[in-house]
Amino acid sequence: MTNRSDPSGEDSLIARYFKPLATDPGAFGLVDDAAILKALGEDIVVTTDAVVEGVHFLPDDPPDTVARKALRVNLSDLAAKGARPAGFVLTLALRRADDSWLAAFAHGLGEDARSFGCPLLGGDTVSTPGPLTVSITAFGRVPAGQMVPRTGARPGDRVMVTGTIGDAAIGLDILTGGPAASALADDAAAKAMLIGRYRVPQPCNALAEAIRAHASSAMDVSDGLAGDLGKLCAASRVSALIDVLRIPISAAAQRVLAHRGVDIEAMISGGDDYEILCTVPQARCAALAEAAAQVGVALTPIGSVIAGSDAPRFLDGEGRDLPLARRSYSHF
Amino acid sequence: MTNRSDPSGEDSLIARYFKPLATDPGAFGLVDDAAILKALGEDIVVTTDAVVEGVHFLPDDPPDTVARKALRVNLSDLAAKGARPAGFVLTLALRRADDSWLAAFAHGLGEDARSFGCPLLGGDTVSTPGPLTVSITAFGRVPAGQMVPRTGARPGDRVMVTGTIGDAAIGLDILTGGPAASALADDAAAKAMLIGRYRVPQPCNALAEAIRAHASSAMDVSDGLAGDLGKLCAASRVSALIDVLRIPISAAAQRVLAHRGVDIEAMISGGDDYEILCTVPQARCAALAEAAAQVGVALTPIGSVIAGSDAPRFLDGEGRDLPLARRSYSHF
Repeated sequence: MTNRSDPSGEDSLIARYFKPLATDPGAFGLVDDAAILKALGEDIVVTTDAVVEGVHFLPDDPPDTVARKALRVNLSDLAAKGARPAGFVLTLALRRADDSWLAAFAHGLGEDARSFGCPLLGGDTVSTPGPLTVSITAFGRVPAGQMVPRTGARPGDRVMVTGTIGDAAIGLDILTGGPAASALADDAAAKAMLIGRYRVPQPCNALAEAIRAHASSAMDVSDGLAGDLGKLCAASRVSALIDVLRIPISAAAQRVLAHRGVDIEAMISGGDDYEILCTVPQARCAALAEAAAQVGVALTPIGSVIAGSDAPRFLDGEGRDLPLARRSYSHF
Repeated sequence: MTNRSDPSGEDSLIARYFKPLATDPGAFGLVDDAAILKALGEDIVVTTDAVVEGVHFLPDDPPDTVARKALRVNLSDLAAKGARPAGFVLTLALRRADDSWLAAFAHGLGEDARSFGCPLLGGDTVSTPGPLTVSITAFGRVPAGQMVPRTGARPGDRVMVTGTIGDAAIGLDILTGGPAASALADDAAAKAMLIGRYRVPQPCNALAEAIRAHASSAMDVSDGLAGDLGKLCAASRVSALIDVLRIPISAAAQRVLAHRGVDIEAMISGGDDYEILCTVPQARCAALAEAAAQVGVALTPIGSVIAGSDAPRFLDGEGRDLPLARRSYSHF
């Protein structure tokens, strides 16, 4: 992403909307082909996630929410890895340069970049005849060798999750005219909250340092709790027992559940939660809980890591396995 | 990009085609959400470029060439910045998972990753209803503070360029049925060379260290020599005088020029060269020329940096300004 001397459409677009966001010295004000992450003796954590119109966000979603979601799905990965945000690069594939859309997009992106301390370092803007696609690669810093892996879960560790699960899946259901909307017909505030959870994830970056200090493994929940826990267990070569009644559910989602607008299986198999799923040795649980309370992040124990290679079991109030036909979202 | 326990289409696709490429320990075999660039006391150079079907490559281009182009346009940026490749992350937006296409794509990507010493560290695979899009963010290492900037050109420096200019623009003209094809009707080898230059750039990474040692500024030529030199001059707050007759032109392109299949303006305003454009203080020219000869890279002086803020002038054999209506490619 470069601010060019020729006043082409692409160049003026970048200068107008994105140069103000490039506040880090390593961005060179977007006048170079490349950016610099300074050597500070720490490891650089790299994560990349793209959001596609019609797949990860809806064509009518407000542009500032598209920007926030694109950045936050990456910030969520950094949080789960125990990393401090260091910056990001952006590739924007646009059908056309629509000034009002771009102004709102850049405004949302700039606000989040500031509030999460993750400045724009560079990028690329290309034209496409297809859907709008925002691809972000984000960088974080951790002390050398201390990134929180997926592979560290051990039998006996507690399984914990931040925030609440399933809100975003219900929000998408509401936006696409599914049955959840009628369960909340009279409650505009609850619907707005659930829609907000789909459009704008709330990654727990405030908890990153404590996750690094105390968790044995972690990942963010992006494709559904059930499937993502399965991936974590497979990476760690363990299994897990989850108490479904302990999975944190928001009050609005509880109402939708009570009205049978959605079932619990859909909530724990749906995507877009962007909460941290982690495993914590027993001896570390109290310290992590205290750290979470200090930064105001809800952290809920939902089960235990056990030995074995089976998919994690999700047990209902009577100890029966929840039937999970489809554990997570897959693109293909 | 993760190798998941659930045997979904996305997961098996990643495991089958991309895990074999993730040879760097920082990639964690693609089982994690994130990758690591180890702290080695060097600055990390970050560059990102996307290629879109129908915009940067043609729907019929062989899949291995699409992969090579997507990686090499980023390697070209690293070369111009004087950086040693360290790895890359890949976002692949696909309409559908076509096994034969993906196998060929991954094969080309893997060969280039190995030959350029730039391993796959991670990525994201998403579905799209639109054109195939390959977005790569690549990383390089430079000694702290030594990235070659765009801003260092000074009056009196020589302007130099690697390789030959304009071949790729002619290659695209041939592929899209333009007039260049008839100028070379009898010469299949020349046509194949020019098409190859469009499909598979040949970035000069072997010259990166010498560029870092000797150039005052550098960038890669991706959107046309005339426009890109204008951007470099603007960033450095200088101007330049270029001797058009000195611009290196391949024998095949000379033939197309002679048959008036294309004009020189189109060749120096067209894109996709992926050569290094640099400015070099007089006292460093001999050392850089010697280094280029040692690594087998053609390096040609084409003009001089001068004081001023005008766009660079391109002078023909009689000292007249070449008319350049459109100096470079712009997406919007």
